[in-house]
Formats: sequence, C-alpha cells, structure tokens
Amino acid sequence: MPAQSSTKLRIQFRMRIYRDGGTAVGPGKIALLEAVVRTGSITAAAQEMGMSYRRAWLLIHELNRSLRRPAVATAVGGARGGGTTVTETGHEIIRRYRSVEAAAERAAAADLAALKRMLAP
Amino acid sequence: MPAQSSTKLRIQFRMRIYRDGGTAVGPGKIALLEAVVRTGSITAAAQEMGMSYRRAWLLIHELNRSLRRPAVATAVGGARGGGTTVTETGHEIIRRYRSVEAAAERAAAADLAALKRMLAP
Repeated sequence: MPAQSSTKLRIQFRMRIYRDGGTAVGPGKIALLEAVVRTGSITAAAQEMGMSYRRAWLLIHELNRSLRRPAVATAVGGARGGGTTVTETGHEIIRRYRSVEAAAERAAAADLAALKRMLAP
Repeated sequence: MPAQSSTKLRIQFRMRIYRDGGTAVGPGKIALLEAVVRTGSITAAAQEMGMSYRRAWLLIHELNRSLRRPAVATAVGGARGGGTTVTETGHEIIRRYRSVEAAAERAAAADLAALKRMLAP
C-alpha cells in the first residue's frame, strides 16, 4: 500500500524486569549504562542523559545492589579521583537486554506488519 | 540456583506504535479496548480502569481516528441511548497486540533467563 509509506511509523519495545515492586532492569538503567560506556564517567553520562549526577549515581547504585556482581565499578584514588568502569557483568546486561529487544521485534514482525496495515494512511 | 526461586521476578513487555509524534497503539489503549469488550460500555470500562469517561472517550476517539476502520462503534438511539461494540478490527488489534507480546517473550526466553540469573538472590 503506497499510501502507508508516506506515514512515519515507529515501533518501540520496552522490557522491564521487576522484583519486590521496583524495577531491577529497565530501559532507563540500560541507557545510562551505555552512556557510562561511551563517556567513561558517571558525571558525563548523567550530563548526556540530562539528569543530575545524584540521580545517575542512585540508579547505578540501585542496579549494582540488585545484581550478584556489580555492573559498574569505581576505582578509588588516582590523580583525577579514580575512574568508573562498566564491568563484564555490565556489558553482558547491555548485550542481553538489547538482544531481547531485537529478538522480540523479529518474532513479532508479522503481527506488527498487520497492525501497521490497519492504521489509517 | 534454588535461592533464585525465592525472589519474585516479573517481566513486563510494552510495545507502542508511534506515528507523527503520538502513540497510535500502546498498552493503555489496548487495556481500555479489552475493558470495553468485558463490560460492553465505555462508561463501565472507564470506571474499571479508574479513569474519567471523558479520558476513555478521548482515547477511543484517538484510536479510531488513527485506524482505517474504527475499533469501537457506537450505535445511536435505542432505549438506553445506543450501545458500544468493539468491532472486528478492534478484536483483531487486541489479538495482534497480545500475540506480539507473547512472541516477544518466547523469543527472548534465553536472554531473559540469563538476565534473571545475574540478579542477586
């Protein structure tokens, strides 16, 4: 249907793992973790995401506490007050989370296409 | 890991189809549509979902406008002011949407299990 292609459609998948009422893993924490990988610091990651350092720190603290092994490690000391590293666990969480989204989108492709066709041009 | 089973974990998938900035189809509208199927009226559906009649009506109006064919039809007249029916299109949207969620969860099962194992007991 050619009329369909003129409309901008975007699909968004959001996955959250809840435990004891709170979110253990969700899109916000994953995006923050990715920003820490990109920027190498919580300060820069917070800035990039438009949140306060305090809020970013709390989210990472919460994430670390909910895991067997921390996702982010902070090295104490050093000339610039130590560094922030996303651990092997942190990288695996990002990878698995994004893989869930990709698998979900592939698995749902036929139904998604049908839903799109039901939308008005 | 037996310790794992003592923790209550819940996975939530949310899928939204956006167009021109707004949400065309998302979890809220689908849940409302299901409530209209269950209760047979927008008034009762709104009440069940804890929203005003006005808000429910607007959501359904918005959904109808975004579709080629309406999801909810209102019959004019009759002793009690006409009835509200979820159309064939409406039923198909619900079915497709829930099917997307189920397919996503199945496709993501291995990664989800791995993510769960990474959580602290």
